[in-house]
Amino acid sequence: MKRRAFVGTLAAAAGVAACSQESASSGPAASQQTFRWNMVTSWPPGLPGLGIGAENLARRIERATAGRLKIQVYAGGELVPALEVFDAVRAGTAQMGHDASYYHRGKVPAAQYFTTIPFALNGNEINAWMYYGGGLKLWRELYDEFGLVPFPAGQTGVQMAGWFNKEINSVADLKGLKMRIPGLGGEVMQRAGATQVTVPASEIFTSLQTGAIDAAEWVGPYNDLSLGLHKAARYYYYPGWHEPGPLIECIVNKEAWQTLPEDLQEIVSTTCQAINLDIQSEYMYGNAQALHELMQQPDVEVRELPEDVLDLLAKHSSDVANELVARDPWAKRLQDSVAPFMKKSTANQRVSEFSYLRARMRLDDAS
Amino acid sequence: MKRRAFVGTLAAAAGVAACSQESASSGPAASQQTFRWNMVTSWPPGLPGLGIGAENLARRIERATAGRLKIQVYAGGELVPALEVFDAVRAGTAQMGHDASYYHRGKVPAAQYFTTIPFALNGNEINAWMYYGGGLKLWRELYDEFGLVPFPAGQTGVQMAGWFNKEINSVADLKGLKMRIPGLGGEVMQRAGATQVTVPASEIFTSLQTGAIDAAEWVGPYNDLSLGLHKAARYYYYPGWHEPGPLIECIVNKEAWQTLPEDLQEIVSTTCQAINLDIQSEYMYGNAQALHELMQQPDVEVRELPEDVLDLLAKHSSDVANELVARDPWAKRLQDSVAPFMKKSTANQRVSEFSYLRARMRLDDAS
Repeated sequence: MKRRAFVGTLAAAAGVAACSQESASSGPAASQQTFRWNMVTSWPPGLPGLGIGAENLARRIERATAGRLKIQVYAGGELVPALEVFDAVRAGTAQMGHDASYYHRGKVPAAQYFTTIPFALNGNEINAWMYYGGGLKLWRELYDEFGLVPFPAGQTGVQMAGWFNKEINSVADLKGLKMRIPGLGGEVMQRAGATQVTVPASEIFTSLQTGAIDAAEWVGPYNDLSLGLHKAARYYYYPGWHEPGPLIECIVNKEAWQTLPEDLQEIVSTTCQAINLDIQSEYMYGNAQALHELMQQPDVEVRELPEDVLDLLAKHSSDVANELVARDPWAKRLQDSVAPFMKKSTANQRVSEFSYLRARMRLDDAS
Repeated sequence: MKRRAFVGTLAAAAGVAACSQESASSGPAASQQTFRWNMVTSWPPGLPGLGIGAENLARRIERATAGRLKIQVYAGGELVPALEVFDAVRAGTAQMGHDASYYHRGKVPAAQYFTTIPFALNGNEINAWMYYGGGLKLWRELYDEFGLVPFPAGQTGVQMAGWFNKEINSVADLKGLKMRIPGLGGEVMQRAGATQVTVPASEIFTSLQTGAIDAAEWVGPYNDLSLGLHKAARYYYYPGWHEPGPLIECIVNKEAWQTLPEDLQEIVSTTCQAINLDIQSEYMYGNAQALHELMQQPDVEVRELPEDVLDLLAKHSSDVANELVARDPWAKRLQDSVAPFMKKSTANQRVSEFSYLRARMRLDDAS
């Protein structure tokens, strides 16, 4: 028997509080206190990637804590509506939430910096900024005002520009285009002449098929294939300039967080970081398989947005971000933190990922 | 609660019951057994990225287990030589190791598939293959023959091609070039006309400075800057075609692994996955800062390898890999698993990361 267990048993026999982690004068021990939490999410039940990822997060925390922290996961709408995760966790209706920070940009405009900004950081870069560039520290400070503790906990990778039933050959083709594209990307499209239409995920397919909208963005090949969007639109445009590396958040109610012993806090934090990579890896693998399948479809054309269209969208994106920064002090703090890193990171991407991928593609073209 | 743990606490039941929420016979519990392990590594003491990452891995496991699993970390050479981690963990000299699988390709030639292969998967792709494409399952099977349990536990990102004191303007400039470049990359350079020279990391600087070698690869900006290589060579070539996404391994002695209770096994596994992302993020951030600093140096020129040089290196890389696959059945199994994914992933990179980075670079050029 190890010393700590021996001491613990003696203490218990003597009728003192052996269940307290610090009950003995020395030696390590895990607290035996147990917790049952709810996790509300913004995802449809069983959604590949994000939905399954939230379930994995809960299951892995339960295993790592030997059942001391059990988490019941609710899909969007099961306990609270999909887009009300932020409020539910603030209020303590659930102790934990899994969603994207830009869903509550109506309440916290700067929060979209913690998901994705058009033409800004990609997935690896937002992680670098979070863990090593001060991003997570700023996030913790901002969310503390709302009684929440945030963790990066998922990543879809660069999304696609969306499904279109009209060809986009020049900026003129954006005029009057009815597109389902929420958030900052929608604002940008609007300035470029399109009409932003609000359509819940569950109705994208029908809206495209009936012609109520001309175009819609959802996620990328892995999720879009499962929604069947290729049966409702012909042109699949890339790249996802509006969501280049959407980070998913796990948020924990601060009071609930403070009741956890330190080892359970560490397990939650570490499992979120592990799940962040796990979900990113699932998308990277699943997107490659799904894109391949989509490219076999006779009625699907995968196309790159023309340069002049991308350049126009980039210009409006910059304007939209600058206006946000001008009116929101927190957005300014975040932009001031992101911008110098992004400038240097662009130079670094040029000599690393970009240059390498270009060499490999040339090889692929030749084979 | 595990049966053994339940029996173990029977004697203490009277004292524990009063304060544990789940003290009844059916409730969960963490084992109180404690373990002290050694971790040997291949890294110089305090090496940014990999060395600090190994220390973080140990520290985080200790915190998450409330001290039940304490791990003492040794830099290369402190307990066993830097490149003998594989043997030391096999023999049980240490329970755990942190190194790169291609360091022991002399014993297990196919193991280099678990680190990196010239012109093959980048960092995100090798993670996708590991966690979702069957890579980790194959790795576990191969290492089981050696009594080891492997985990992905770090990533440097695309490296640089290296530091050169001769300009590389065409394939002719590779002829007779004395270069420090180990592993498969070295074999490829040799076939392209260069002379592969073996130089330990600690002597790269002096070998370059004295002209004993013309060129050397080490890691990338973050680590290279700390080694001062820019003071010993002028041309910093990219991309790191020979190491496009080196994965770092954590290996555990199988017998030691089997002594761990399930919750501690889960914590080790999850912390390795978290550290994998953490190290990748540190390099992504650190490389951007270090490259910026290097580009300010008046005596440093950052250059891309010419297309015909990259194409020649790609051809030889393909030959070297094919020959390995022809003579090693395990390499064949791994290649058969990687190749179809890589083909699809290249198409996916084209529409996602590559296309997005290109749009962002055009924006950066214009600003």
